[in-house]
Amino acid sequence: MNVVQKYGGTSLDSLDKVRAVAEHIASFRKEGDGIVIVASAMGGTKDELISQAKQLGDNIPKRELDALLATGEQKTAALLAIALQNLGIPAVSMTGFQSGFITTDQHSKARIKEINTERVEQFLKEGKVVVIAGYQGISETGDITTLGNGGSDTTAVAIAAQLGWDCEIYTDVDAIFSTDPKIYPKARKLNRVTYDEMMQLSSGGAEILETRSVELAKKYKVKLFIGKSLESDKRKGTYVMDGSFYIEEMPVTGISISDDCSIYSLQGMKNDGTVIAELFQLLADHNINVDMISKQTYRDNTCTISFSCTDSQSEELDAALENSKILSEATLIKQSSLSIISLVGVGMATSPGVASKVFTTLAREGIVYYQITTSEISISVTVDSDEKIKAVVALCEAFGL
Amino acid sequence: MNVVQKYGGTSLDSLDKVRAVAEHIASFRKEGDGIVIVASAMGGTKDELISQAKQLGDNIPKRELDALLATGEQKTAALLAIALQNLGIPAVSMTGFQSGFITTDQHSKARIKEINTERVEQFLKEGKVVVIAGYQGISETGDITTLGNGGSDTTAVAIAAQLGWDCEIYTDVDAIFSTDPKIYPKARKLNRVTYDEMMQLSSGGAEILETRSVELAKKYKVKLFIGKSLESDKRKGTYVMDGSFYIEEMPVTGISISDDCSIYSLQGMKNDGTVIAELFQLLADHNINVDMISKQTYRDNTCTISFSCTDSQSEELDAALENSKILSEATLIKQSSLSIISLVGVGMATSPGVASKVFTTLAREGIVYYQITTSEISISVTVDSDEKIKAVVALCEAFGL
Repeated sequence: MNVVQKYGGTSLDSLDKVRAVAEHIASFRKEGDGIVIVASAMGGTKDELISQAKQLGDNIPKRELDALLATGEQKTAALLAIALQNLGIPAVSMTGFQSGFITTDQHSKARIKEINTERVEQFLKEGKVVVIAGYQGISETGDITTLGNGGSDTTAVAIAAQLGWDCEIYTDVDAIFSTDPKIYPKARKLNRVTYDEMMQLSSGGAEILETRSVELAKKYKVKLFIGKSLESDKRKGTYVMDGSFYIEEMPVTGISISDDCSIYSLQGMKNDGTVIAELFQLLADHNINVDMISKQTYRDNTCTISFSCTDSQSEELDAALENSKILSEATLIKQSSLSIISLVGVGMATSPGVASKVFTTLAREGIVYYQITTSEISISVTVDSDEKIKAVVALCEAFGL
Repeated sequence: MNVVQKYGGTSLDSLDKVRAVAEHIASFRKEGDGIVIVASAMGGTKDELISQAKQLGDNIPKRELDALLATGEQKTAALLAIALQNLGIPAVSMTGFQSGFITTDQHSKARIKEINTERVEQFLKEGKVVVIAGYQGISETGDITTLGNGGSDTTAVAIAAQLGWDCEIYTDVDAIFSTDPKIYPKARKLNRVTYDEMMQLSSGGAEILETRSVELAKKYKVKLFIGKSLESDKRKGTYVMDGSFYIEEMPVTGISISDDCSIYSLQGMKNDGTVIAELFQLLADHNINVDMISKQTYRDNTCTISFSCTDSQSEELDAALENSKILSEATLIKQSSLSIISLVGVGMATSPGVASKVFTTLAREGIVYYQITTSEISISVTVDSDEKIKAVVALCEAFGL
């Protein structure tokens, strides 16, 4: 069977683990199988390299940081190819540029423009396992780029899409669960989720799979599988696929939790749109990621706009707001240390009563909630982080998760 | 002034040293100067990476080892570029392939075929200091290659030749000395040596500069300078140049010492050349580097051939000889733990009496010597390693070094 497998940093954070991954690959490989492995940097490498760069000054140019960080995955890829060859498996390592990943030139968050798989396919034709350094590519002007957080997932899905192969993402969790088992120990393991559900679960903080890679898998119909490294029983993991398997509809598939969130509400703004445009330009200029956004308009033609960002970005945002004239035209109310709880389910679109059940449950438990946002397949509410566990447990029980 | 500077691994083996090198570069850089820096891997990196590879098995494929080792220089280059930018110096790092080093495909000992400096020159035109990862290149089929021991010296001289610039090699020694000051504390610092002398001194074990890079500098008339890192007084270092500065001829410029050497003598061989050809084919097959070679022919049409190799290679050679039929046609005499002492000097070619003085000095001191080989600008003798210091001191005094 032809397959792209990606192994995460915790699966490769020692030479023993590199050897174990190689043995695992050797154990299932049959003559004629096409196998591409995407390697992450050894766990901790990225933080260590960034810390070294920071010791050289406050100004870390992104082009140079990308060149520095790319060595992490290149190293693991070479070590894994060496380990495979020592098990008698012909294998070659390839960096991002060697495997043909052409990206945009936005350093530290480049996007893949195209993949020239000519050399990869040549090696595969020669019967070799191809080990690709994840997370990296090269811009059209020849600079080394990295793909941002979770970039190795994107590398794996993209090469799978290009080759028309299935993609297996191996990490340190067993599978995707209906919610975080650390919060709700009875959380159900999900055998299958849809791409859309997975995207909601990812962006809501599930941290198992990068949202972009799921988006890519959906676009190119790549069959995705998430499982624990070295576990060969596929029944223990989770398949991510399109929605056609939904015979019996479950309104809510999972609950994801995003912590350390701040909510900003700007009240009493003029509703002519210019201040709002200015505000979001300011957020973009400071590279602040906004998750929830909601807006109410009032009869006196004023409005309130609310949005969330992470607590860690809020300091920068406060400074930026202070230097802008936006605050003079509105009243700011800021809440920190909040959690966003998102209920996700493709079935939700056709199941009325989900929102009602959410609000009834929270009210019954006496949990105060603030913003509410919804998409076709999700409902998110913010609660004080202290109330998070109580809320998740109550909602899991209410929806039978 | 336009210059290529190479910094060795010991000059860059901590973040503090990386910062110090950056400060040094910043201190002498003037507006409009063209500066290319060639960075080595941080001291100890190569050994550590090789050790990690070895822990994965006995079979270390050279292609993968090259991909692994190349990360060392790539990392230092990026860190140095970051340090420079933090001092307000615009700088970019480049890997071997980015800086256009196209090599042969002999992994671990590739040779440079051509350098496409287009991108380097573009960055230089933009006023940037270009920091090139030394020791590496890319083959025509797109595989990462390394240039072998001392490869970063070769990188530096080659790019200097291509750009038509001077080249400065910074390392942890002050300069080139007439002999190793650890053995003869009164050794003279050499202000200038010729390319040929430097090559003899390098290949004789001076270990300061790789022979190949001196050869390259000679071929392309690159002005070379050797000095201690961060020392800005050029008078303390050594210039390597052509022989035109020799007004007053000194017959012997320096003495180099090569330790841990074995000498093989095959006596009583038929002098028809076939056995000798076979012998040297065997040495080549086992990749054994031969330094001294000498041959005597006798009246009965037999001959004796002697050659030297390092003690560390002699074990492999013994095994290879045992499996060949060469030993059945000759008597082998092997001596180990020898030192080769080489007296080097361009002036030697036109100064009679040097050999006589060498032999007289050694005889007077009662030092037994074995093989003698000579070139136009050198005389080498082997002595027991125990006698090495006594011999070097006596020869230094005799030649006023």
